[in-house]
Amino acid sequence: MKATGPEAQLEEIPEADCLEILEQHSLGRIAVVIDGQPQIFPVNYAMSGRIVAFRTGSGTKLSHAPGSKVCFEIDEYDPAAGTGWSVMMQGVAVDATDAFDDVSWAARAAAPWPLAPGAKPIRIAIEPSQFTGRRFRRPA
Amino acid sequence: MKATGPEAQLEEIPEADCLEILEQHSLGRIAVVIDGQPQIFPVNYAMSGRIVAFRTGSGTKLSHAPGSKVCFEIDEYDPAAGTGWSVMMQGVAVDATDAFDDVSWAARAAAPWPLAPGAKPIRIAIEPSQFTGRRFRRPA
Repeated sequence: MKATGPEAQLEEIPEADCLEILEQHSLGRIAVVIDGQPQIFPVNYAMSGRIVAFRTGSGTKLSHAPGSKVCFEIDEYDPAAGTGWSVMMQGVAVDATDAFDDVSWAARAAAPWPLAPGAKPIRIAIEPSQFTGRRFRRPA
Repeated sequence: MKATGPEAQLEEIPEADCLEILEQHSLGRIAVVIDGQPQIFPVNYAMSGRIVAFRTGSGTKLSHAPGSKVCFEIDEYDPAAGTGWSVMMQGVAVDATDAFDDVSWAARAAAPWPLAPGAKPIRIAIEPSQFTGRRFRRPA
């Protein structure tokens, strides 16, 4: 990992490590832009290679995300140690429910387990354009 | 709290409770839109009434947020109990570093403690337009 400045307390996480961290977790947050207003929703997800896959209900705000730029993020903070990290994936949402493209196949191969109750027939995939991450330590 | 559908497992959190939950926490995430692309950053925050206040460095992406629509979110999930909640605040970011308006005064009265290292001279306030939240329970 590379320090991002004179302080070694803030480090960039390389893309390969971002992917590994994403694979080790299952709860993240997606940001979508609706009429110029960003909104954030927690979702349970699964990775399929570099693709984030999750399920949502029809008629939900997330069911309107396909085709638009979205952001997916996970993070963790340990208050006792004063250390934390965050991983962000930027990309485009794809409706993978019925489509036959590679991204949709990959998304359907993943088995995200919805967190919240209710029917979630729509499968959304996020096709990534960029992975970034950083680790940080509380200033002493 | 009001159930949002036939299932009582998903409940809306009223605005007053959203504010109370925001006051009880200090780590959240802000979503900003940069060239149409939403991005999510974890930030350490403090509440000042209904205003979210946090600090950032000059030249960071968040220092360009003032004047734009942003979203602030916190959430928690208990895997053992299968229960969770999320609270989302939509609003507009304000540069509260030097300004004399009410929002800026309120933001400076709060004392957010930055999580990551580095100089963080810029104080950002989020003036809220809407608070929403929900509690959910894993389907049995």
